[in-house]
Amino acid sequence: MNAPHASHPPLSSLWSTDPGTALRVGRGFRLTDVDPSSTPGFDGKKKHAEAELADGADELSELQERLFAASTGGATDAVLLVLQAMDTAGKGGIVRHVVGAVDPQGVDHYAFKKPTKEELSHDFLWRVESRVPSAGRIGVFDRSHYEDVLIGRVRELAPADEIERRYGAINDFEQTLVERGTRIVKVMLQISSDEQKSRLTERLERPDKYWKYNPGDVDERELWPHYQDAYQIVFDRTSTSLAPWHVVPANHKWFARLAVQRLLIDALRGIDPQWPAPEYDIAVEQARLAAT
Amino acid sequence: MNAPHASHPPLSSLWSTDPGTALRVGRGFRLTDVDPSSTPGFDGKKKHAEAELADGADELSELQERLFAASTGGATDAVLLVLQAMDTAGKGGIVRHVVGAVDPQGVDHYAFKKPTKEELSHDFLWRVESRVPSAGRIGVFDRSHYEDVLIGRVRELAPADEIERRYGAINDFEQTLVERGTRIVKVMLQISSDEQKSRLTERLERPDKYWKYNPGDVDERELWPHYQDAYQIVFDRTSTSLAPWHVVPANHKWFARLAVQRLLIDALRGIDPQWPAPEYDIAVEQARLAAT
Repeated sequence: MNAPHASHPPLSSLWSTDPGTALRVGRGFRLTDVDPSSTPGFDGKKKHAEAELADGADELSELQERLFAASTGGATDAVLLVLQAMDTAGKGGIVRHVVGAVDPQGVDHYAFKKPTKEELSHDFLWRVESRVPSAGRIGVFDRSHYEDVLIGRVRELAPADEIERRYGAINDFEQTLVERGTRIVKVMLQISSDEQKSRLTERLERPDKYWKYNPGDVDERELWPHYQDAYQIVFDRTSTSLAPWHVVPANHKWFARLAVQRLLIDALRGIDPQWPAPEYDIAVEQARLAAT
Repeated sequence: MNAPHASHPPLSSLWSTDPGTALRVGRGFRLTDVDPSSTPGFDGKKKHAEAELADGADELSELQERLFAASTGGATDAVLLVLQAMDTAGKGGIVRHVVGAVDPQGVDHYAFKKPTKEELSHDFLWRVESRVPSAGRIGVFDRSHYEDVLIGRVRELAPADEIERRYGAINDFEQTLVERGTRIVKVMLQISSDEQKSRLTERLERPDKYWKYNPGDVDERELWPHYQDAYQIVFDRTSTSLAPWHVVPANHKWFARLAVQRLLIDALRGIDPQWPAPEYDIAVEQARLAAT
C-alpha cells in the first residue's frame, strides 16, 4: 500500500505537542485551570495559524473525499464533530471556516435548538440518533445531546435522577456509535467571561450583528459559574477513552479554528480511508465505453 | 435605504450579455443549437473566469448571510438551485466550487437518488416537497423532480399519461414555491457526447476516480439522443416566466461554474436581503449586559 499522505508532513514544527494530546480532557482535568487566551501546544502566532489553516483545508478536503469514496466500497467509517460552548465562543466560525473547506456533499451539519414538543415526548437521545452521520460522511452537531446535561442541569429541565441517568446513557450511545465505525471528536470551546461580554457588546453595536444577539444570551450569561460547573461534570463523566473531550481555548479564534481542524484531520488520518477497488471489470467497461 | 452592494460592480466588462439573459431558455429554444464548448455572454478566458469566481464567492457568501439574517427578522425569501445534467457534466463540481463558498450552515444540499419503495408509493413530488429550503436558506437539488420526466420518460417508468400529467404538476408546484418566497434557479449543464466519453474514460484510468464510475452510466449514455429529446420537452413545457430554465454549456468547467455562480448571485441580488432591525431595545440590552 502506498503512503497515502506522503505530501503532508505530520505537523509543522510550530506544534510542540500534538493538539490531540495537548487539548484532551484526561484524569484530573479542571476546566478552571484552562486559560482561554492560551494556545496549548502551538508556538506560532496568528499569521502562522492562518497559513497552517489554509494548508490544512486542502488535506481535510482530500481526506473527506477519500472517506466518502471508501464508503462507496463498503467502508463504514464516519466522523462526528460535536461542538459545545457558551454563546459567542465561535461554534459558527468553526463551521464556516473549518468545516466550510470541505465539499458540502460530504457534510451533514445540524444545529440543535430548543427541543420541540414532539422531541420532548421522546427520550433525549431520540432526536440525536436520527442525525448521526451515515458511512462516509462528516457529521457536525452544533450543540448536541450534551445540552440535556448542561442547560438541562443548570435550569433543572428534568428531575435530578433523570439528569444523573443521562451521563451513562450518553456513554453507552457514543460507545455504540464508535463500534459502528464513527470517530467522535468532542470539542468544547472555552472563552472567558470578559471575552463573551466584549463579543456580545459588539453585537449590540453593529447593525449587521444585531440579528445574532438574543436577550436570552444575557440570561444564560448570568448563570456562567453554573454552566462551568455543569461542563466540569460532563468532562468528569463522559470524557471516555473511546470518545474523549477536548477543551479548546477560544479567546483567539485563529487558534480555535486551527486546533479543531487538526483534531478533525487526526481523526481522518486515524481512519486512513483508501480509494476503493472497482466493483466492475475495468477492461470490460473500457470496451463497452469505446463501443459507444 | 443604503445601496447594499456598492462595493460590487454589477458585472465585469468581460460579460457582453447578462448571464441570466444569455443562458435563459425562451420561446423557440432548441437544445441542439447549443454548442457545449461555447461561453455565451462571456468574452474572457479560463484565467479571467477563475478570478471572477473568486471575487463572486465573497459576494455570494455575504448575500447568503444577509438572506439568513433577514429570515430571522421574518423575511420568507429562500433560493432553490435545481441542477440537472447527463452524467459527468459537472454537477458535483458546481456544488463543491460554487455552493462550497457559502457557509454550510445556510445551505441544504440534497442529492436525489433512485426513489425508494416508500417514495414510489407516493406521488412523485412527495419526496421533493419535504426537501424544499426553508426561509433564509439556499437549497440545492442535485437531480430533482425532473428525473421523473427524464429517466421516467426515457425508460417508461410510468404510464405515458402520468408522464404527461407531471409537466403541469411541476409548474403548479414551482408556482406555489415562488409565491411562498422561493426563487428557483433551474440549471441544465450541457456537455457534448464526446466530452462525456472522455470524462468517463478518465474515470476508468485513475484509481482515485474508479469509485465515480458506474456501469449504468454507459447504459444511460447509449440513450443519449432520447435524453436530449426528453430535456427538450422539459424546456418546452416547464421553462416558465416564474421559473425559467437556463442551459449552461459545460464542456468548460470554468465557464459552467462562473455562470451558475452568477445566476445564484443574480437571484440573491433580486431578493436584496437586508439586515433585520433588532426585535429588542438596544439601550435596555446594553444596560443589562453592562450589569453582568
